[in-house]
Amino acid sequence: MREVKIGLCGLGTVGSGVFNVMSRNLAAINARSNCQISIAQVGCRRDNVACDLSKANITRDIFEVAQNPDIDIVVELIGGTTVAYELVMLALENGKHVVTANKALIAEHGMTIFAQAEARGLMVCYEAAVAGGIPIIKALREGLSANRINWLAGIINGTTNFILSEMDTKGREFADVLSEAQAKGYAEADPTFDVEGIDASHKLAILASIAFAMPLSLEGLFTDGITQLEPQDVAYARELGYVIKHLGIARQTDAGVELRVHPTLVPERSLIAGVNDVANAIMVNADAVGTTLFSGPGAGAEPTASSVIADIVDVARAMDSYPDSWVPALGYSSSVIEPRTLMNIEDVETGFYIRFSALDKPGVLSDVTKIMGDAGISIEAIIQREQPAGERYVNVIILTNVTKEKCLNEAVTHIEHLETVRGEVSFIRVEYLDQV
Amino acid sequence: MREVKIGLCGLGTVGSGVFNVMSRNLAAINARSNCQISIAQVGCRRDNVACDLSKANITRDIFEVAQNPDIDIVVELIGGTTVAYELVMLALENGKHVVTANKALIAEHGMTIFAQAEARGLMVCYEAAVAGGIPIIKALREGLSANRINWLAGIINGTTNFILSEMDTKGREFADVLSEAQAKGYAEADPTFDVEGIDASHKLAILASIAFAMPLSLEGLFTDGITQLEPQDVAYARELGYVIKHLGIARQTDAGVELRVHPTLVPERSLIAGVNDVANAIMVNADAVGTTLFSGPGAGAEPTASSVIADIVDVARAMDSYPDSWVPALGYSSSVIEPRTLMNIEDVETGFYIRFSALDKPGVLSDVTKIMGDAGISIEAIIQREQPAGERYVNVIILTNVTKEKCLNEAVTHIEHLETVRGEVSFIRVEYLDQV
Repeated sequence: MREVKIGLCGLGTVGSGVFNVMSRNLAAINARSNCQISIAQVGCRRDNVACDLSKANITRDIFEVAQNPDIDIVVELIGGTTVAYELVMLALENGKHVVTANKALIAEHGMTIFAQAEARGLMVCYEAAVAGGIPIIKALREGLSANRINWLAGIINGTTNFILSEMDTKGREFADVLSEAQAKGYAEADPTFDVEGIDASHKLAILASIAFAMPLSLEGLFTDGITQLEPQDVAYARELGYVIKHLGIARQTDAGVELRVHPTLVPERSLIAGVNDVANAIMVNADAVGTTLFSGPGAGAEPTASSVIADIVDVARAMDSYPDSWVPALGYSSSVIEPRTLMNIEDVETGFYIRFSALDKPGVLSDVTKIMGDAGISIEAIIQREQPAGERYVNVIILTNVTKEKCLNEAVTHIEHLETVRGEVSFIRVEYLDQV
Repeated sequence: MREVKIGLCGLGTVGSGVFNVMSRNLAAINARSNCQISIAQVGCRRDNVACDLSKANITRDIFEVAQNPDIDIVVELIGGTTVAYELVMLALENGKHVVTANKALIAEHGMTIFAQAEARGLMVCYEAAVAGGIPIIKALREGLSANRINWLAGIINGTTNFILSEMDTKGREFADVLSEAQAKGYAEADPTFDVEGIDASHKLAILASIAFAMPLSLEGLFTDGITQLEPQDVAYARELGYVIKHLGIARQTDAGVELRVHPTLVPERSLIAGVNDVANAIMVNADAVGTTLFSGPGAGAEPTASSVIADIVDVARAMDSYPDSWVPALGYSSSVIEPRTLMNIEDVETGFYIRFSALDKPGVLSDVTKIMGDAGISIEAIIQREQPAGERYVNVIILTNVTKEKCLNEAVTHIEHLETVRGEVSFIRVEYLDQV
């Protein structure tokens, strides 16, 4: 059997997972890849007590790994987009294939990296960059290759899903759950990346590029986090038969491509509504297959390692064959990858959940429904809920049919100007998920 | 771009789907495969009005396709295990790669076919043979290649899932729903294959061979259908927080491999409990990734075509590279595929749902719980429900913890001998799905 030598860069959570799973399952991994795979060098700033490094060849200089002539595949698990970028480019310059779990790196520098790899006849694989252990990149690039992808919608950040699940099942406040998530290690000390949707936007950019054969880019991608969500909205959504999930959504329409990350009401009977805690799931709707769903652990040492090693096996198996036989980086030959018109969020059509505070007196609802009607918006449901303790104002919650966001904004402005309405009208987008 | 020529054998439901999706999405499919793919010949007994065959090269002799020197890949979609087997072997003899959607063929003759293909340096792909459009074969063979698979459990027959969904949501009788399924075309005129679990057993055998690196075989696989299920069991299960699904289950244990198809209670909060109608879903539990779930349409012209064409793309892309770079037929090099000890159903451990009819008088439950205790079975829940109209007997339903089936059988015999118990004790297996 051919020998294939791995250089592992980074020995944090994911790195230690890769090291340990590779050691534990090596015989099976070799029998799958038809190669003799070994970790020839580990580049890390410090050892990780989770790993038995007694036989490992350790260097503190990761760039040494990228230049080590023995090494066939450099596995980049250091994170970030500066040193990681240098490392990956250096590895390619030195003729190494690359496997990475780095979503930010691929989303931001993917096109440069893929071009470099293609020019040098090398592979760059990144299954672990999206949705941890779920083989969604493979499903999109290969499993669904017969299809025109219409849309995909995913829970692609475990931290926000954990927070939303807790808010839903226990009625807790966002800030309260966030503290717990930080204590449990589900959320970073600085949670901005997760709760503001930045991490999800990186992953969505990657999924969309594969789905729609368009270059990787974060530009024009609409991103909204979950920090403004209130427990009452989660509860009202349930009352209406919906669950709030933080989704990354990509859709092809005649007017352009929608790319957006935001809290979203989904029907509670839909499969994705039942994906809770730190789990991830991606729904894909495509012309031939219809709707599929892929779910599983979206993060963690060994789930992510599972995807990193799957990439290593793929590369090891194919590296000595000719590059035309490899799956292209974005699933399509690079010659057909073309920028697409992205839609402004104002032009996107979704359903809407609207909440505002109005005086509890006759005529208010008729004013509001007239405004909605004038804006061409049909109403799916209205509920009115009393505030506690003799309060003269009630909460009004409206669920609309699918409408253009600019129409909704217009209606919202009119509603806010009603004398009977107090404060702002808040809204959350709704996806009915059954539409093509 | 290289030209790759397809010979399509069979133009029924799936064949027409392949023909139509190939025509509709050809540009994208070529951009994915880096080849110029065309359907060079169609072998079918009669034309299919769903396809525009005006430019097709049709033959009524499918064996002509297998021998056509222009053709690179023979796509077998005729079904059955006699002519289909001859066709596939003839195609291999003539140096053609093979793509098939035929679960019975692969389950029964897979080892012979794969050996022949390997000897001749050819690929045989069969993604469409299991779970229609869900790329589960690819997920198991490639996406989860880092893992030791502990177990998998799948809804892998759409007809039975449709029947169970209807029984669950509408309280209907099995026979009644079956008639409707036949009228809708979800079930065959002779439904035995589906409702007795034979179709599911073929698919389970395939999944298990890939998961556990064991030769394809139907021997020793325990199969039970859904024909005996009563609406009251579906209702009682719901009352206890469970849903009845017809599952194919494969599990590695220290005592051997379990392979079984039977109706199963699953917790209603589990994701797979929400997979309804004709949809399929497979849960996979593995050592590194944990539990993943793959769901989608398990049958139908275009969902199945989606998988057939994905295989065609894989073969087209890789066929000119060397065979060592291909994914082996069962995911592992054939040299490590080894028979495993299969467990007798009596030695398998699951939870049990038990129902029987007992006199409504004091002491009955204490007799029954003593029998269970003596057999070493712990009880999870007991409910007792009155029969209609002054009946002296009540229905007793017991949910047990995980126990060996032979212990359960022993307890059942004792319960049936109680004077206070009338008729037979019926039982259904329970999977809690969170156990490794």
